[in-house]
Amino acid sequence: MKHSPALAGLIDALRTLPGVGPKSAQRMAFHLLQDGRAGANALAASLTAALAAVRRCSRCRMLTEAELCSICESRRDADLLCVVESPADVVAIESSGSFRGRYFVLMGHLSPLDGIGPEQIGIQELEALLAQPGLRELILATNPTVEGEATAHFLSEVARRHGIAATRIAHGVPIGGELEYVDGGTLAHALAGRQAIS
Amino acid sequence: MKHSPALAGLIDALRTLPGVGPKSAQRMAFHLLQDGRAGANALAASLTAALAAVRRCSRCRMLTEAELCSICESRRDADLLCVVESPADVVAIESSGSFRGRYFVLMGHLSPLDGIGPEQIGIQELEALLAQPGLRELILATNPTVEGEATAHFLSEVARRHGIAATRIAHGVPIGGELEYVDGGTLAHALAGRQAIS
Repeated sequence: MKHSPALAGLIDALRTLPGVGPKSAQRMAFHLLQDGRAGANALAASLTAALAAVRRCSRCRMLTEAELCSICESRRDADLLCVVESPADVVAIESSGSFRGRYFVLMGHLSPLDGIGPEQIGIQELEALLAQPGLRELILATNPTVEGEATAHFLSEVARRHGIAATRIAHGVPIGGELEYVDGGTLAHALAGRQAIS
Repeated sequence: MKHSPALAGLIDALRTLPGVGPKSAQRMAFHLLQDGRAGANALAASLTAALAAVRRCSRCRMLTEAELCSICESRRDADLLCVVESPADVVAIESSGSFRGRYFVLMGHLSPLDGIGPEQIGIQELEALLAQPGLRELILATNPTVEGEATAHFLSEVARRHGIAATRIAHGVPIGGELEYVDGGTLAHALAGRQAIS
């Protein structure tokens, strides 16, 4: 059946959200207009407010409301810089509590076919950080996908030109995982990256 | 890590959507503020527009932008009235193309513990429809849950008082399903509802 124009427009707009297909979008739209009108008003208001307030950190390109994000503002080890693809990756690494350095958010990965080259992933800002004194190591934490690996390789070359050591995060069997269910590529990485037991 | 206030507000608002947990909400918020700014503006605008324009059909309580919804406006069999819990149920039955009657949308089900009684599911509007001449059968298509069954039972009593026949949609093995994977309650319904092969 055909939805009314305003309802169809809302469903189309909700479908642009990641992970939301036509069925989920319809369910969300009915929920918002049926039981969740207060929530819908709050969503529209907070979306407009966030669009106006949130921008990129001038140093690391993380999403923030200030000139510098809370991580760049806080006292962090200045000798380690971790490059990630998205703000969600920063959140994931921060929640692991295992990193005390700074970040640089590419907001994507190299993808020449989509017109995403070094400019689009902020190579100028990154080179400015690489030129700063005190930086010792560039940790490449892009995703272990074809594009992520290519981006990591490209950035390692850039780091080499600046005389900065570039490292790649380890790939292997996830903690709690069972070898039986791990794919071949991951197992190959796990074997190749084996370390002496101290 | 702590999100900035506008970002945290957006994530909280997105979590009110059905099927969206904290991880999905964060992913949606980052997407909206990162790659999807045009989509985010469209979402905020269409949400505001839909909240202002969409209301309930004065006859069947379906979501609509006009006084009557498109189904009530169209020429439908006036002798059949199908009672469903939500607008999504109307869409599902319409897409099956197997019903030519009219609908009545309860916008919920009886749930005394949540303060949802006959008033809240529109019993007055339904009784007005039951009193109209020409109506022959009330089809109860509420969900096969405890609340849905209780609501169907209550509405069948109401229909009986108006001298209207009340029927319940059939429950049984879904088409394409395998008996092996169907739960016991459904199989019991399928056996009890068996029909002679003509």
